[in-house]
Amino acid sequence: MFQSFEVTARPEQGPPRLAALRSEMAQDGLDGFLIPRADAHQGEYVAPRDERLAWLTGFTGSAGFCVALSDVAGVFVDGRYRTQVKAQVAAEFTPVPWSEVSMSAWLKEQLPEGGKVGFDPWLHAAGQIAGAQKDLEGSGIELVRCDNLVDRVWENQPGPPLKAVKAHPIEFAGETADSKIERLSVALKEAGCTAAVITLPDSIMWLLNIRGSDIGYNPVAHGFAILHATGQVDLFMAREKLVVPLGDHVSIHTPEAFLDAVAALKGSVQVDLGTLPQAVADVIEGQMVDAGDPCALPKACKNDAEIAGSAEAHLRDAVAVVETLCWLDAQPPGSLTETQVVNRLEENRRKDNALQDISFDTIAGTGPNGAIMHYRVTEETDSRLENGHILVLDSGGQYLDGTTDITRTLAIGEVGDEEKACFTRVLKGMINLSMLRWPVGLAGRDIEGIARAPLWSAGQDFNHGVGHGVGAYLSVHEGPQRLSKVSHVPLQPGMILSNEPGYYREGAFGIRIENLLVVQEAPALPGGDAERAMLNWRTLTYVPIDRRLIIADMLTTTERDWLNAYHRDVQEKIRPRLGVEAQLWLDAATAPI
Amino acid sequence: MFQSFEVTARPEQGPPRLAALRSEMAQDGLDGFLIPRADAHQGEYVAPRDERLAWLTGFTGSAGFCVALSDVAGVFVDGRYRTQVKAQVAAEFTPVPWSEVSMSAWLKEQLPEGGKVGFDPWLHAAGQIAGAQKDLEGSGIELVRCDNLVDRVWENQPGPPLKAVKAHPIEFAGETADSKIERLSVALKEAGCTAAVITLPDSIMWLLNIRGSDIGYNPVAHGFAILHATGQVDLFMAREKLVVPLGDHVSIHTPEAFLDAVAALKGSVQVDLGTLPQAVADVIEGQMVDAGDPCALPKACKNDAEIAGSAEAHLRDAVAVVETLCWLDAQPPGSLTETQVVNRLEENRRKDNALQDISFDTIAGTGPNGAIMHYRVTEETDSRLENGHILVLDSGGQYLDGTTDITRTLAIGEVGDEEKACFTRVLKGMINLSMLRWPVGLAGRDIEGIARAPLWSAGQDFNHGVGHGVGAYLSVHEGPQRLSKVSHVPLQPGMILSNEPGYYREGAFGIRIENLLVVQEAPALPGGDAERAMLNWRTLTYVPIDRRLIIADMLTTTERDWLNAYHRDVQEKIRPRLGVEAQLWLDAATAPI
Repeated sequence: MFQSFEVTARPEQGPPRLAALRSEMAQDGLDGFLIPRADAHQGEYVAPRDERLAWLTGFTGSAGFCVALSDVAGVFVDGRYRTQVKAQVAAEFTPVPWSEVSMSAWLKEQLPEGGKVGFDPWLHAAGQIAGAQKDLEGSGIELVRCDNLVDRVWENQPGPPLKAVKAHPIEFAGETADSKIERLSVALKEAGCTAAVITLPDSIMWLLNIRGSDIGYNPVAHGFAILHATGQVDLFMAREKLVVPLGDHVSIHTPEAFLDAVAALKGSVQVDLGTLPQAVADVIEGQMVDAGDPCALPKACKNDAEIAGSAEAHLRDAVAVVETLCWLDAQPPGSLTETQVVNRLEENRRKDNALQDISFDTIAGTGPNGAIMHYRVTEETDSRLENGHILVLDSGGQYLDGTTDITRTLAIGEVGDEEKACFTRVLKGMINLSMLRWPVGLAGRDIEGIARAPLWSAGQDFNHGVGHGVGAYLSVHEGPQRLSKVSHVPLQPGMILSNEPGYYREGAFGIRIENLLVVQEAPALPGGDAERAMLNWRTLTYVPIDRRLIIADMLTTTERDWLNAYHRDVQEKIRPRLGVEAQLWLDAATAPI
Repeated sequence: MFQSFEVTARPEQGPPRLAALRSEMAQDGLDGFLIPRADAHQGEYVAPRDERLAWLTGFTGSAGFCVALSDVAGVFVDGRYRTQVKAQVAAEFTPVPWSEVSMSAWLKEQLPEGGKVGFDPWLHAAGQIAGAQKDLEGSGIELVRCDNLVDRVWENQPGPPLKAVKAHPIEFAGETADSKIERLSVALKEAGCTAAVITLPDSIMWLLNIRGSDIGYNPVAHGFAILHATGQVDLFMAREKLVVPLGDHVSIHTPEAFLDAVAALKGSVQVDLGTLPQAVADVIEGQMVDAGDPCALPKACKNDAEIAGSAEAHLRDAVAVVETLCWLDAQPPGSLTETQVVNRLEENRRKDNALQDISFDTIAGTGPNGAIMHYRVTEETDSRLENGHILVLDSGGQYLDGTTDITRTLAIGEVGDEEKACFTRVLKGMINLSMLRWPVGLAGRDIEGIARAPLWSAGQDFNHGVGHGVGAYLSVHEGPQRLSKVSHVPLQPGMILSNEPGYYREGAFGIRIENLLVVQEAPALPGGDAERAMLNWRTLTYVPIDRRLIIADMLTTTERDWLNAYHRDVQEKIRPRLGVEAQLWLDAATAPI
């Protein structure tokens, strides 16, 4: 199985490791050391050797950092992880509510003037260090580059991942690597840059049409690249991973050669200061143009082959989900636990030979567990699906032709009216955003309120974005596109996004409904403004939405029509792929309301 | 009457004046001179002596500027004025589509390296000059401060306005000037500033609880002020205007003393670089903190007395509008022209003794004229209200207790289905925004899409914001609050905004429906999130929405319920104030649909 339910946090491991780290700090004359969750590639997942935060503190969340000082060690975690951190770290660690308390504010409180805090310049983005230094101005507290002190004291630290890279076939990529290199290098030249430094693995995978498996869930290999305006690419990656040919435009170097190669660049160099390691920024400081990763936007705008591949992957993925839902409905309330649902869903997904991995740990939260937004079921928390519960089931697969991410919320037995009313509001928001057509130029911020308004009208809301970008057999969380109040990037045709409003009542229940959608040019309408280019969505996800949780009277005619049409599409696209039992289940699940 | 329909543009006046200006330019060794619409206070309306742009070019729009060079004179106007400018200026002037073409881009095309363009540093904000200089970097073209060359050649230029200032009574202001000065000076001190420079007249009026009449439509007097962190105010205003006592905290000086007083300030000084004249910035350059006008936000958040006053002003204003609509309906199609409607409406408003002025030139655009967003009817354009037209009627009044702004779109005889469908979509957007409840912290940008979505769904939209801030017996266009894609200022209780979606089909018809609303704390709802503070609207405007233009089947039940409830409120609040004929008209106009 891909997913494990092991309890990986052992609070007691932390204190001796912290003590060892502190003696290294003392030896180096440091008053503190920063331990981020991130690796040099600033992604969501890290390799075992980069699990420094978990190794030191016991905290296994996907975001956060520790600031170890000689007498206190703060573990900074955001709202999602406030409960989890308390269970995972020993008393020697102090949870700090982040970002309500910034690192700088906390340091100013804990350290005297002249305090020196070390950091590994490979693990922090230049923009992040610059921001912290600005916040610390006038305090006399200094951030100083140093070796990684955790690596010094971590006995048996795993080595870097060295899994073989595979070619990503043109039938799925839709554009050759040569063509991508060519158009990006022309754009670089036009922007007056001689080169761009690329440190995000999914950008390198996309540019060179390769995929890796250095970390879980994301099909990427670790490495760095320099794209030259001449149309050449220098790739810095362990040679043993590179058993596929990469073409004449790509030269291969060892990762150790990367920094010297960057230092040797002449002229203006395009970088993304939000993710570029400080160690890299240090060697080209005067030459940087902070114009972002040049692959980010082209990668986000999927071509026809990528969209067709994603659509097909979603249809096969839907079969696995529908077969699971059919099976789930046949079990009496109280007979299953969350891990059994996770395992059954994964088994059904693995029947597809194109499945490479799940795209993230399945979230299966029943009853009160559904209210924990990033719930990961473990052997300890595994709960029974009781009558009256609603189950949040959020999962996805990595297929050779596409990445999926789907959430359905499901009735277990007889569910209360309050849950149904909240579910119907979430559904209204999800439908209204799905139906939306909007003028070219708007960003996620401008339209995400549409998916929240039905909840707002009842005095409710949820504390996450409406949607995130999704890659094409790449990261399930991909920028720069987002449906979020912080996203000012205009939506463009080919961008894949999730539409996943939710509602969470702590200690009681959670709700989330998620489809993936592709932005497309909206066809002209009779009577529409002739000069006004507009966009709308093409749906990728086709799995029934639980009719038992819908209060039909709360839907407008238009919303009800959308739902019935969506269920007709599910019938048409998915039924022929199902077994007989699931076909009958689907007929009932997609009946008009 | 307040409103005139005179055609003030005479294209033939321009060329000899331009010639005179050019000889001044030559004499001063300049290759060009900038003539903005703005005065030193950067407001929407200017006094006759500041109508330099209209005097020189003939163009009378409310925004734009002229760049006069030795061989070409560009008149930069935005999308609203492209047609108007062609009719108003002589062939010696070249209309330039702004902001598609920036001043800097145009100058680079027209002038050689080393070109010198003069500007009057009192008429341009420091931020604007800094932006232009940045855009001109590397071009060798220079912007140089100089005398106002238009003033040199303008014979019989009117003098500065010297109308007497009146006290704004505490019953309407709701807070004494002493209290405002006190709390703003405390905030200044806390921000580490010794003083703030205030150059916006409506800020000065608000702070000192006074009103003036130096310009049309906005009850303000021109002047400048310095608010000291000590709690003292220096007011720079012609003494003959100041016949009211201003209290112990205010010292009066002549406008001529302003610049020396600013130059004498020590320490950090709060300014708004977006509106501070360059001439003022020049004397405190190293000390400026660009934190905005300190009055802007407190002024925008109206207190209970201001809200009560505005509400009452709106009820009386509604009587004038309803009486006009009743009269209008009694006239056969084809019998009236636009100016007759404007005059009748103004006559009805003037029956209220509290009316001080209209709050802007009434827009009465029938048929195709309705599609011109900022249409001002003149003797030449005055059109007949024909059968089948729809009439956009956008108007407002300045009352001692509040400022109104209302738009209704009205059927003239039998109107086509296409107009009705568009009207109903605009209405749906207006209703959905009126009904909205949203979490604290959102800005105009986050919610204005709600008012557009019904148009978007039909491939339609409109090219203006959904709403603007409105003052309390002050400017009818007031910042910083806006319902617009460019507005990131969080909405706060007490802010008054217009809700005015529209739709415009060039050459055919226009539609706009506008109510004024006040932001208020939304009462908690049963089942709502306990910890989530939310806001909603209190409606100020109570005038029927033309039922003859509504296709009832296009409304959801909720929208229809809102409309019927709104019309019941109109009945209840306005009917007792009407004459018998208008009462009967109102009964029909507010019948449920």
